[in-house]
Amino acid sequence: MKKVKILDTTLRDGEQTPGVSLAPEQKLQIARQLDLLGVDVIEAGTAIISEGEQKAVKAIANEGLNAEICSFARILTGDIDAALQCDVDTVNLVAPVSDAHITKKLKMDREELMAQTIEMAEYVKAHGVNVEISSEDASRADMAFLKSFFSDLSTVVDRLCFCDTVGLLYPERTKEIFPSLCASATGTQVSIHCHNDFGLATANSIAAVSAGAECVHVTVNGLGERAGNASLEEVTAALDVLYGVQTRIRKVKLYATSRFVMNLTKVPVAPSKPLIGGNAFTHESGMHVHGTLADTSLYEPIDPAMIGRTRRFALGKHTGKASVRRVLTEIGIGADEEQVAKILIRVKELGDKGKLVTDSDFQAIVEDVLGIEKEEKIKLIDLSVVTGKRVQPTASIRLEIDGEDVVEAGVGIGPVDAAINALKKALLGREINDLRLEEYHVDAITGGTDALVNVVVKISRGDKTITASGVNEDIVIASLYALLNGVNRLYR
Amino acid sequence: MKKVKILDTTLRDGEQTPGVSLAPEQKLQIARQLDLLGVDVIEAGTAIISEGEQKAVKAIANEGLNAEICSFARILTGDIDAALQCDVDTVNLVAPVSDAHITKKLKMDREELMAQTIEMAEYVKAHGVNVEISSEDASRADMAFLKSFFSDLSTVVDRLCFCDTVGLLYPERTKEIFPSLCASATGTQVSIHCHNDFGLATANSIAAVSAGAECVHVTVNGLGERAGNASLEEVTAALDVLYGVQTRIRKVKLYATSRFVMNLTKVPVAPSKPLIGGNAFTHESGMHVHGTLADTSLYEPIDPAMIGRTRRFALGKHTGKASVRRVLTEIGIGADEEQVAKILIRVKELGDKGKLVTDSDFQAIVEDVLGIEKEEKIKLIDLSVVTGKRVQPTASIRLEIDGEDVVEAGVGIGPVDAAINALKKALLGREINDLRLEEYHVDAITGGTDALVNVVVKISRGDKTITASGVNEDIVIASLYALLNGVNRLYR
Repeated sequence: MKKVKILDTTLRDGEQTPGVSLAPEQKLQIARQLDLLGVDVIEAGTAIISEGEQKAVKAIANEGLNAEICSFARILTGDIDAALQCDVDTVNLVAPVSDAHITKKLKMDREELMAQTIEMAEYVKAHGVNVEISSEDASRADMAFLKSFFSDLSTVVDRLCFCDTVGLLYPERTKEIFPSLCASATGTQVSIHCHNDFGLATANSIAAVSAGAECVHVTVNGLGERAGNASLEEVTAALDVLYGVQTRIRKVKLYATSRFVMNLTKVPVAPSKPLIGGNAFTHESGMHVHGTLADTSLYEPIDPAMIGRTRRFALGKHTGKASVRRVLTEIGIGADEEQVAKILIRVKELGDKGKLVTDSDFQAIVEDVLGIEKEEKIKLIDLSVVTGKRVQPTASIRLEIDGEDVVEAGVGIGPVDAAINALKKALLGREINDLRLEEYHVDAITGGTDALVNVVVKISRGDKTITASGVNEDIVIASLYALLNGVNRLYR
Repeated sequence: MKKVKILDTTLRDGEQTPGVSLAPEQKLQIARQLDLLGVDVIEAGTAIISEGEQKAVKAIANEGLNAEICSFARILTGDIDAALQCDVDTVNLVAPVSDAHITKKLKMDREELMAQTIEMAEYVKAHGVNVEISSEDASRADMAFLKSFFSDLSTVVDRLCFCDTVGLLYPERTKEIFPSLCASATGTQVSIHCHNDFGLATANSIAAVSAGAECVHVTVNGLGERAGNASLEEVTAALDVLYGVQTRIRKVKLYATSRFVMNLTKVPVAPSKPLIGGNAFTHESGMHVHGTLADTSLYEPIDPAMIGRTRRFALGKHTGKASVRRVLTEIGIGADEEQVAKILIRVKELGDKGKLVTDSDFQAIVEDVLGIEKEEKIKLIDLSVVTGKRVQPTASIRLEIDGEDVVEAGVGIGPVDAAINALKKALLGREINDLRLEEYHVDAITGGTDALVNVVVKISRGDKTITASGVNEDIVIASLYALLNGVNRLYR
């Protein structure tokens, strides 16, 4: 069966996201992951922009990956030579095709542009290297000119790309343009490169495939300039699930790839990002949880396992009884209908304050409603922390552990680190030595220096994992509360 | 000219975003803003879910807004009565129409569902209130049944909505379904309600309008369960700019509305969110900045002023000379070509570390390259901060201001607040009394308690505003550095 090719440009257009910068070693790591994922072409960067970039592109090209490796270049010999020195399989030459871009940016006319593009493409081919032409701002080009541009170049190059540089394309127009454009490029592949300025990048990429495109440019997590590029996850999953069009992508690796790129680029994925966002398979409202528990397909577009992730049930204002019962069963606690109703009221009250209800919050509510008298194993009695410039951050902590008075001190590289280190030392040697802090997260703080700070931790012991949170105006106290809340639930 | 109606469900489906909860007063504030924006119908909530919710819906219905106000309700008299008590103009009745939802969730058959829906619709109408029917999971319903459902209800209700509850619709299918669906609903309006599970919500909403839908359900910022609902901004801007279809939305208020909702729901808008994200009109790469300075339309889909915002030029790894020259002109500093090249190298170096290059960073680079000897007005000599449990957060600070030794102390509700207060006290009375801290932002901290903390502040003096940042493993030190970096640039 014919498969659509995927060109991933996370390492080129994706890296042009404002504030994103990857070291050569990080680029290589991402390239390896993209190769495992099954991407057909990896655009590794723009060799000319810096020495580091050139080093990265060369390392990727020589890594022995299955994917075809390419570098972006303007139609200038300097750009092309830099790319060729990296041993790439393909040079992706960007040639603007709209009159505004040709005249205002390049100060050329159409004939000069055409001549220079052909000359540069032949220059690359003379080195035995493949050429893709990225026709920039194609959606605002004169269509007759674009067709003759594609037609003239089709005998020289290997792939011709229609770039919707400013995100002005829409599906109907895409379907109108592509059949005749592909016809004028006989003998060479046509690809599509979409930007998401109106939220239509996925729809346009798919429309192009339906209308004859054989290769789609995408980025992981939809990274890219402005509103970003078409998302690898959305395009490949929609092509497969909704259109029955196959790619070589191993879908089960999509989520892991997204997280990997997020961690290296430090660009957080929005909770609502389709397929890969934190909320994409999360159910909170009573009606949805009730339905999902009866049949997972009722409120899910696909089984989350298809892309390597799991569903999550959140507790909050819109929670219903079905969610409460499910979690009670999971933690092995029985409750009658009246108790379930009481627990639900308390969960909704907490959710009403706009707060995420963590495992630890839920357990505290359950124990309170069921009258399970469990004294906290560890109580925080006193804490003092000093920090500053020319001051070694130091914390002293006084805890009551199982009724025993424990005092410890610790240092760290900041006040939170010092306080946590003091706590860890106090717990060590007291049979709490198998505790692991898996995740420490502080929500972004916006507003003033007196804003509430919300700290969420994930800690585990053996194979049991728990989330807990702490809220305080003081980040040090909030961090300690979060950790103690979790530890007290975990060591029962 | 015919205008498409916009039903905004930020206050109902949008609030079902996990972790989001709005107080009644906040819901009213958002409703007022939506009315100013020009929304036709405001879905204010689900009256039955709580007392607070009922209070909010009632307050919105009685606010005297131009918009039609509706409440969501299941096809149960209890739900409907709760809605009617709120004095709404319309009740939006949700009736599942796919066999899986009818049988597995409601435990009914198609006939029972049809009968109960008609009965409940007539019950609402008998109270002189309008009815919209939200046919849930319509994209997985039997189309023959859906048409007869629409046909039978069209004589009773005011609007019939096709709900793509799980986000499985795609544009081609939408265009196939809508013409005959609208034909079977003669005499009543047909609306569309899309979810973004495959990133196609905007495309599907528009496809439905092209194929006959007269009303579109949307949410501000695309809030909503899982991957969210169709975004108000994307749908209305795309309809206008790409399709020439008008709505009553005052587009110039789109950005302000987005920020308003973001601040109240506390759900951050992704930097790459089309139109409203932080990066949507930001240019960093040399090629793009160069082009945009020649003609803003080269790399922008619309003039940002159309939706009430401005473009931004970011400095970083991909910056080119054009950006450097532009900022130099802006701050009134002349530099020759060689100096511009040197400044560019330094900006790229900083960007290479993945850091946002702030105004203050740029000025420091420029002064260094140009050899402008400007001693820092304020130097931090010493700082010590104490905090803890049962400890009043207190900071002492020692500064050198214009060569003079200044020592002050301050308290606060946390260590950062105490340190900033001490700094403010030290500056007061020293001709630096017109300083305003406009924004204080800490990036989310993920990883460990020893992660680097990045603090960005925006401060202003008179009509001059500057951004500055500070990075340190200690949040207190990072905050002070950010503030001092800014103050030293501002008071020159």
